Amino acid sequence: MKEYTYSDIKIGLVESFKHVVSREDEDIFRTLTGDVNPMHYDDDFASDVSGGKLNKHVCFGMLTASLLSTLAGVYIPGKYSLIHSIDTISFHNPVYAGDELTITGEVIDKSDAISLIVVSVRIVNSNNKTVMKARMKNIVQR
Amino acid sequence: MKEYTYSDIKIGLVESFKHVVSREDEDIFRTLTGDVNPMHYDDDFASDVSGGKLNKHVCFGMLTASLLSTLAGVYIPGKYSLIHSIDTISFHNPVYAGDELTITGEVIDKSDAISLIVVSVRIVNSNNKTVMKARMKNIVQR
Repeated sequence: MKEYTYSDIKIGLVESFKHVVSREDEDIFRTLTGDVNPMHYDDDFASDVSGGKLNKHVCFGMLTASLLSTLAGVYIPGKYSLIHSIDTISFHNPVYAGDELTITGEVIDKSDAISLIVVSVRIVNSNNKTVMKARMKNIVQR
Repeated sequence: MKEYTYSDIKIGLVESFKHVVSREDEDIFRTLTGDVNPMHYDDDFASDVSGGKLNKHVCFGMLTASLLSTLAGVYIPGKYSLIHSIDTISFHNPVYAGDELTITGEVIDKSDAISLIVVSVRIVNSNNKTVMKARMKNIVQR
């Protein structure tokens, strides 16, 4: 786990990690949240309701978004993190069970008065297609 | 699970549900995401790093935010939901293990050209204190 303090952090700092979303993770997330929507387990339903655009069920968008927690709490800033707010999580392409995601955050701004950093986040799949983008504001508590 | 179609939905539609965040949920989320930050299990660390403002560890903000998946996928619109994007998730007060949360969404806008609804979300604890707000844009696939 990183332990960046507010003064350690410079605009342009980049951290990145990989994460595989498994079928089991989907089941766990379903039980955790109670989101039993068939888009996330029923391939036929996903195909039918998307007019054939999808041929498999898609991973929960919020399961992918949960990796923002890891990015903040382990990498930028890591130990001294407290997520303040998140602007604009956007979902760009589907994530499927088994996909390996690369989650990258870059510090794009700092607010000294409240020890807040702004982190631009991009998540891509193993074909380098963007699946999600976000902008996160984290308080750095040291 | 609700099955609202786009034409079923009127501006002003409100859906609400309750959810208890347990200590076990926190452990599951930690394993699911790899976010091992001590703010979310170590009461002494949480107290120390917050300068005494907290006396217990706090629940992951993104675990609370994951309930947006449930709101969209089960309630508004339910079965035909696909989350398009989320503007501004803001965290207002801490959530602690054992808290009962009430998650409420209200449809505040519709975009007919792309069958998109805008849902204003507020999550409160059992003392009616706001813990999180968000604005979610969902495609309604039927």
